[in-house]
Amino acid sequence: MADLPERTASDHNEEIMHATYRALCEHGYADLTIKRIAAEYGKSTAAIHYHYDTKEDLLAAYLDYLLDRFVATIKDIETTDPEARLELLLDKLLVKPNEYPDLVVSMLEMGAQAPYKQSFRERFQQHDEYVRYTLKAVINHGIDEGVFGDVDATHAARTLMTIIDGARTRAVVLDDTEAFPTARRMADEYISTIRAVEESTDS
Amino acid sequence: MADLPERTASDHNEEIMHATYRALCEHGYADLTIKRIAAEYGKSTAAIHYHYDTKEDLLAAYLDYLLDRFVATIKDIETTDPEARLELLLDKLLVKPNEYPDLVVSMLEMGAQAPYKQSFRERFQQHDEYVRYTLKAVINHGIDEGVFGDVDATHAARTLMTIIDGARTRAVVLDDTEAFPTARRMADEYISTIRAVEESTDS
Repeated sequence: MADLPERTASDHNEEIMHATYRALCEHGYADLTIKRIAAEYGKSTAAIHYHYDTKEDLLAAYLDYLLDRFVATIKDIETTDPEARLELLLDKLLVKPNEYPDLVVSMLEMGAQAPYKQSFRERFQQHDEYVRYTLKAVINHGIDEGVFGDVDATHAARTLMTIIDGARTRAVVLDDTEAFPTARRMADEYISTIRAVEESTDS
Repeated sequence: MADLPERTASDHNEEIMHATYRALCEHGYADLTIKRIAAEYGKSTAAIHYHYDTKEDLLAAYLDYLLDRFVATIKDIETTDPEARLELLLDKLLVKPNEYPDLVVSMLEMGAQAPYKQSFRERFQQHDEYVRYTLKAVINHGIDEGVFGDVDATHAARTLMTIIDGARTRAVVLDDTEAFPTARRMADEYISTIRAVEESTDS
């Protein structure tokens, strides 16, 4: 089990989030209890309940925490060149999860509970909307710059998200080591179909 | 909640499978118990345990049952024309699940448990392998007939499965009504990229 990529772990909340991550990796979502999170935290269950009334509240905060961290890594992308930026976004969306298999597993477990837990549903929806918005913006930028053809950017963003979600699901459910390489190749093939058709005569 | 599409429900096992389906739709995988399945079956838990030692055994049999039924619907496809056959396969893989939302939810819940339950993992893997094999065969047939270009049929089958799994996950996790229409459009766009390039002169 890999630890979460390091950022600052300076306050109690950060420590509880790390403890939740470790407890999820060890026990899985189905067998997760506040007691097990407290054991990882090294304090009593009361110390957790001081901050969170229920396990669902804690896990909703954990989803916020993970999704905020992901947004931060997107904001770290500095290039504004549309194709390079799209490639870097796909790297983060497709390569990183592979490095944290336990994280991808627990996210799918929580995702599968979204039909029963509105607090989970809302967070996944907000996150998906944010990532699709980011993808759509870079594709529209590429269209404006003449890098991509006049494609439907909304559909293009949905296409890339479907590939990403498909790969994550296949990695978890089937333990398919080809899931992420296939998805990366699909994304590259798709991008080649939306690239602006080059003029056959030199300028 | 839609009932399972009717086939024959002639023996005890078929009745237990239908009871499992109804209990899953009503309670979800996480809250499923043998007691709840027995309640749907209209008999005692002992009547279930007579056939299945554990809940996991019963659910593994339930996965076999569902996957067998799906294979039967594939075998119902009579056309041998590669493009028409591929379209009909995609109809079954992408349209049907939308008609049984509770079924898609419980399948994703069980899929997310595959990392913890080898009996689930094996069934999902076998099923995926069978469907990929079927897709690959129809694509190879299309290549032989000159309908599709000289593409990598293994990758093409993985591509279609990734689109399908992505759509199912997005439908469940995000309650995204666009998930299946987007996937269908993606599949059609992908197929158009593997279609044999038409000669520019008429024959």
